[in-house]
Amino acid sequence: MPLTVVGSIAFDSVRTPFGERERMLGGSAVHFSLAASFFTTAHIVGPVGEDFGDEHLDLLRSRGVETDDIERREGETFFWRGHYDHDMNVAHTDDTQLNVFADFEPKLSEDSRAADVLFLGNIQPDLQRGVRRLASPLLAALDSMNLWIETARESLSAAIAEVDCVMLNDAEVRMLTEEPNLARAAQKLIAMGPQIVVAKRGEYGAALFTADECFALPGFLLEDVRDPTGAGDSFAGGFLGYLDAAGAEDPDEVDLRRAMAYGTVLASFNVEEFGIERVVRLERDEVESRYAELRRMTHFETAVA
Amino acid sequence: MPLTVVGSIAFDSVRTPFGERERMLGGSAVHFSLAASFFTTAHIVGPVGEDFGDEHLDLLRSRGVETDDIERREGETFFWRGHYDHDMNVAHTDDTQLNVFADFEPKLSEDSRAADVLFLGNIQPDLQRGVRRLASPLLAALDSMNLWIETARESLSAAIAEVDCVMLNDAEVRMLTEEPNLARAAQKLIAMGPQIVVAKRGEYGAALFTADECFALPGFLLEDVRDPTGAGDSFAGGFLGYLDAAGAEDPDEVDLRRAMAYGTVLASFNVEEFGIERVVRLERDEVESRYAELRRMTHFETAVA
Repeated sequence: MPLTVVGSIAFDSVRTPFGERERMLGGSAVHFSLAASFFTTAHIVGPVGEDFGDEHLDLLRSRGVETDDIERREGETFFWRGHYDHDMNVAHTDDTQLNVFADFEPKLSEDSRAADVLFLGNIQPDLQRGVRRLASPLLAALDSMNLWIETARESLSAAIAEVDCVMLNDAEVRMLTEEPNLARAAQKLIAMGPQIVVAKRGEYGAALFTADECFALPGFLLEDVRDPTGAGDSFAGGFLGYLDAAGAEDPDEVDLRRAMAYGTVLASFNVEEFGIERVVRLERDEVESRYAELRRMTHFETAVA
Repeated sequence: MPLTVVGSIAFDSVRTPFGERERMLGGSAVHFSLAASFFTTAHIVGPVGEDFGDEHLDLLRSRGVETDDIERREGETFFWRGHYDHDMNVAHTDDTQLNVFADFEPKLSEDSRAADVLFLGNIQPDLQRGVRRLASPLLAALDSMNLWIETARESLSAAIAEVDCVMLNDAEVRMLTEEPNLARAAQKLIAMGPQIVVAKRGEYGAALFTADECFALPGFLLEDVRDPTGAGDSFAGGFLGYLDAAGAEDPDEVDLRRAMAYGTVLASFNVEEFGIERVVRLERDEVESRYAELRRMTHFETAVA
């Protein structure tokens, strides 16, 4: 402990079949750090503009998130506008304004450098590598996206070789390795350096691969899914937040699986309401109750002898 | 015990990135009955043409499938040609020749009528209703498809009201109920009559809904998937075959979950090779080993106190 996350801090305008919101606090580092906050202290590193108010900092601090490395700069905060139709697995982007995020050069305070867990959110892979070199975590993880696979494949491969854990959508795992079978694709990533590969599968859950084991969970079956924005980052925050609390150096299979379950739980709360609305008022005992529910939802008895 | 399945008996010509086969024995009733044969005696009801040889009957009988209600008629057997590209969740149909299946009127022998479990494979819903009236099973289940949802919605709704269990792809569950949320859609189906809804999710596994419980399993993570044809029918055969053996009258939650696991196991073997090639030489102890493996692949410990 603690944990550092580098990534986007944003305002999101989102429309889904269940409503819409203008300029909600969002971004990968925000969703991640709020999810991680149930397990550990998260240091958030990223730029914001002059439109980012103290009330947003206060909101993060109210959950114990350390905001000293949020850098306020001239200009406006990263802005994303998007919508979802009935198939909420697919996000449609209507507008992206990078603003202060365009020439982001992450700076880490001593405290952020000293964290046991480092999460490199979805930013340009050379920036991820630069941050990785500044810190000496027990466990470093990264996320990425199709844009970097297409435009910066070599940099991304180098970044992957320098972390312990890769967390990508399953389609990205296949695309990056050019291997259509997920289990084989994950082993190709492991051969590049990381010990842990997590393939996120949207509403269908997530799969975990190490050199020796594989593990999979379905998504938590919910009756209300209002806004999937940030689900993957909430998953990553729950996963790495739990691992940080459990001991990030060489986590064992039992803790990796618990971390997958906590990631699933945090993602499930995140999507029940818009943006961070649900997670920001979530209580730890609700997290534990849903963890137990997820176990009931997925476990079955041994065969009849 | 035993069990009766009504559905297609076919020759399939299939091409995938891993090879191709011409005129393999296939069809929903064939995949279903072979999967069910590990648990119970399956009576298969369906028409074949003059091109259907004794070697095909012998193959089914070698697994203990009862073939007395396979009706040999003038003409050719149902034929399907299709292919899969790298995304093997999507089947591309290149040719369908209904042949003797076009004016199929199912006839059930006394033995077939007396079965404890009846599976109505994906045929026209009025035919399904006709078969349902001929039999008096403890547990009746049906499959269907988008074609019947689009062209025979009223008949299909009536057929659903007359069975205990509905097994559909998740997209079909949403389409039929016009409800985008799977959990809510399943409850709408339950309100139509059945006590059990199984939503099949391709490589992502399956979810089970009853009035009070829900349960979900990911697909078994495989390194070799060569031909997904018949996976859903193999799942249904494993699921209902196990329930027949465990006692089909009002199955409890423990057995429903075990049945979901056996369905997952049989589907996983089915896709590892082309058509029925893998399942036809499968041994019961391999089924049990993979059941135990699936438990290891999906289970996690309780939270740290």
